[in-house]
Amino acid sequence: MRERVLIEGAYVLCDGGMIEAVGSMAELPALDGDIEEFDGRGLCAIPGLVDCHTHPAFGGDRVEEFSRRAAGASYEELHAAGLGILSTVGATRAAGEAGIAEAVLRHRDWMLRAGTTTFEGKSGYGLDRETELASLRAIAAAGGIPTFLGAHATPPKFADADAYLDFILADVLPDAAQLAEAADVFLERGAFDATQARRYLEACRSHGLELRLHGDQFTEAGAIPLAIELGARSVDHLEATGPEGVAALAESDVTGVLLPASALFLARPMPPARALADAGAAIAIATDFNPGSAFCESLPLVCSLAATQLKLSPAEALAACTVNAAHVLGRGDTLGRLAPGYVADVTLLDAPDWRYLAYHLGGDIVAAVVKDGNVAFSRSAY
Amino acid sequence: MRERVLIEGAYVLCDGGMIEAVGSMAELPALDGDIEEFDGRGLCAIPGLVDCHTHPAFGGDRVEEFSRRAAGASYEELHAAGLGILSTVGATRAAGEAGIAEAVLRHRDWMLRAGTTTFEGKSGYGLDRETELASLRAIAAAGGIPTFLGAHATPPKFADADAYLDFILADVLPDAAQLAEAADVFLERGAFDATQARRYLEACRSHGLELRLHGDQFTEAGAIPLAIELGARSVDHLEATGPEGVAALAESDVTGVLLPASALFLARPMPPARALADAGAAIAIATDFNPGSAFCESLPLVCSLAATQLKLSPAEALAACTVNAAHVLGRGDTLGRLAPGYVADVTLLDAPDWRYLAYHLGGDIVAAVVKDGNVAFSRSAY
Repeated sequence: MRERVLIEGAYVLCDGGMIEAVGSMAELPALDGDIEEFDGRGLCAIPGLVDCHTHPAFGGDRVEEFSRRAAGASYEELHAAGLGILSTVGATRAAGEAGIAEAVLRHRDWMLRAGTTTFEGKSGYGLDRETELASLRAIAAAGGIPTFLGAHATPPKFADADAYLDFILADVLPDAAQLAEAADVFLERGAFDATQARRYLEACRSHGLELRLHGDQFTEAGAIPLAIELGARSVDHLEATGPEGVAALAESDVTGVLLPASALFLARPMPPARALADAGAAIAIATDFNPGSAFCESLPLVCSLAATQLKLSPAEALAACTVNAAHVLGRGDTLGRLAPGYVADVTLLDAPDWRYLAYHLGGDIVAAVVKDGNVAFSRSAY
Repeated sequence: MRERVLIEGAYVLCDGGMIEAVGSMAELPALDGDIEEFDGRGLCAIPGLVDCHTHPAFGGDRVEEFSRRAAGASYEELHAAGLGILSTVGATRAAGEAGIAEAVLRHRDWMLRAGTTTFEGKSGYGLDRETELASLRAIAAAGGIPTFLGAHATPPKFADADAYLDFILADVLPDAAQLAEAADVFLERGAFDATQARRYLEACRSHGLELRLHGDQFTEAGAIPLAIELGARSVDHLEATGPEGVAALAESDVTGVLLPASALFLARPMPPARALADAGAAIAIATDFNPGSAFCESLPLVCSLAATQLKLSPAEALAACTVNAAHVLGRGDTLGRLAPGYVADVTLLDAPDWRYLAYHLGGDIVAAVVKDGNVAFSRSAY
């Protein structure tokens, strides 16, 4: 994660949405044909950021819950007031397909403005057939990579989590598997236990989906061993992971996805990032963008949190939200690097040093974003 | 701090840079003359934010130090590498008067873009006559409120802190007092002790300056009792303040200025904000913008940290960086409120609810800023 090459006065030559060459302007070859130039002098080019864990398909917000929690309300008080995840499920169902599509596009644009050129997006605020499928369609339509989080929570109309899984696996999974690339489960006390998570993930795998898990957010409940056994791409959160989990993950091919904005938002402990990195685990960082526990689409802020709270160097943080995040999404060969043969996704920072990505806490640092070889955002043309 | 009035579909009528009236559009009186309208439909208007603690007058940056610290370097290693505050002193002196002026303007524009219409700015990276005075002039020229932080650190050429104070009080204070409104001192182990702080502050007071203190950042070294005894406007930081300090501050007229971005940046404990507020202390929040320990100009991010880390409600956070911060700067009667007779400083948020100021962590939330009745920043005309 510490490898990188820094080129002063660089060019990135793109063709048909792909990077053809990268080098120093002094060595730029003579070019024929119709060349369109974007002048990035004074800016730093980094790979377009890759957000490998977001929940962008929701209606409404949770600002009332956030405000009450800040003022000291307990979980029980919030629940009694009808707040929490099920309030978002209600608002998402009420938004309908058009409302969900509009929300995902708005959130996609927020991410783009923060330098993110590729995002994974999870369903999971529908928990019914219609809204889960609408969420996956909306994410794909916005250019995101859809993940089927059918096992996010159990809606009240079901007797228990097993009864809900009966429904979601029989009535939703077959169609969801046509829309999504991966499946995800919230393995946590009060959500789904390891047995239920295994049942859900094995069914999803049999439908051709890659596997991911929310694990060890509040308690260690077997997510890491299950992720390793099933060959999941990632296990995400890990705030509660202890030394055994760190060691197991380090010996595996499963990537640990760390979500420090979520830990900050909930004032929870940070995941053991330094221990994971030092043990040799593959780690990625992501926003966890969602209305309840991380209303944050900014990977630059996550990089600042990685450097200050997770004790990752800026270089490690950058790798964790570019090439490593691309690997989690099965796109390590095409996304996350500025190199020939990679997609021409470039984020341009308004800073004298690329490490301002982490250093400039909360700064307005993204000057422009190139996606698929085209300028998708430019601050000067805001 | 919880009092506020929310008006849906509101107008703010300004005249000559002052607010003349505030109310509902439905009750807007007929207006004569040459009216210029700024359409804020869909946005939330809050008072222009007031940052009462910043260090904007510096050259260079500390990104190398930040990166090494993130990767695990110790204080001793950083010091041995020539990093730390004295590296900024060197870079600030090298920048010269023009370079300092340019830096302060750049930082002022960053703050404005983040919704800050009034900022206090401290000297303290010169520590010589020429650079301290140049810093104060640069802050005033950029529209800031200058504070003379002559006692920030002791430059190596002096035998000790007392010898440095001999110099700064005799050779710099008389002219600095013509430029600054207040004086500030870094009362901390390794910087200035309570006896030295008292000497500095009493001398500054005799030159007509208001008093402020950096206190209890790492250790309790007598800052709160001294602040109360001397009638200081504020004591700032308070990360290390214990119950006695909380009680003493609550019984006094001194405002506690909390700087959660600094605590985050250094991965230090947060100040006891909830205890202070519950005990009845006056509290403000500020960025502490500086290159070493809080490279963050964003009061919206500080509001998010206030809600998530300090357990202040969004309403308390908003009061803490508007009317309370204005009070610290001696401008509680003219700044920090949207009310007749106040300066027409208005920050417009791109959000469906003003509490997104704290809720939308790291979001690009400031759509426009009106200062002295004029549009000073508008995202649509970036």
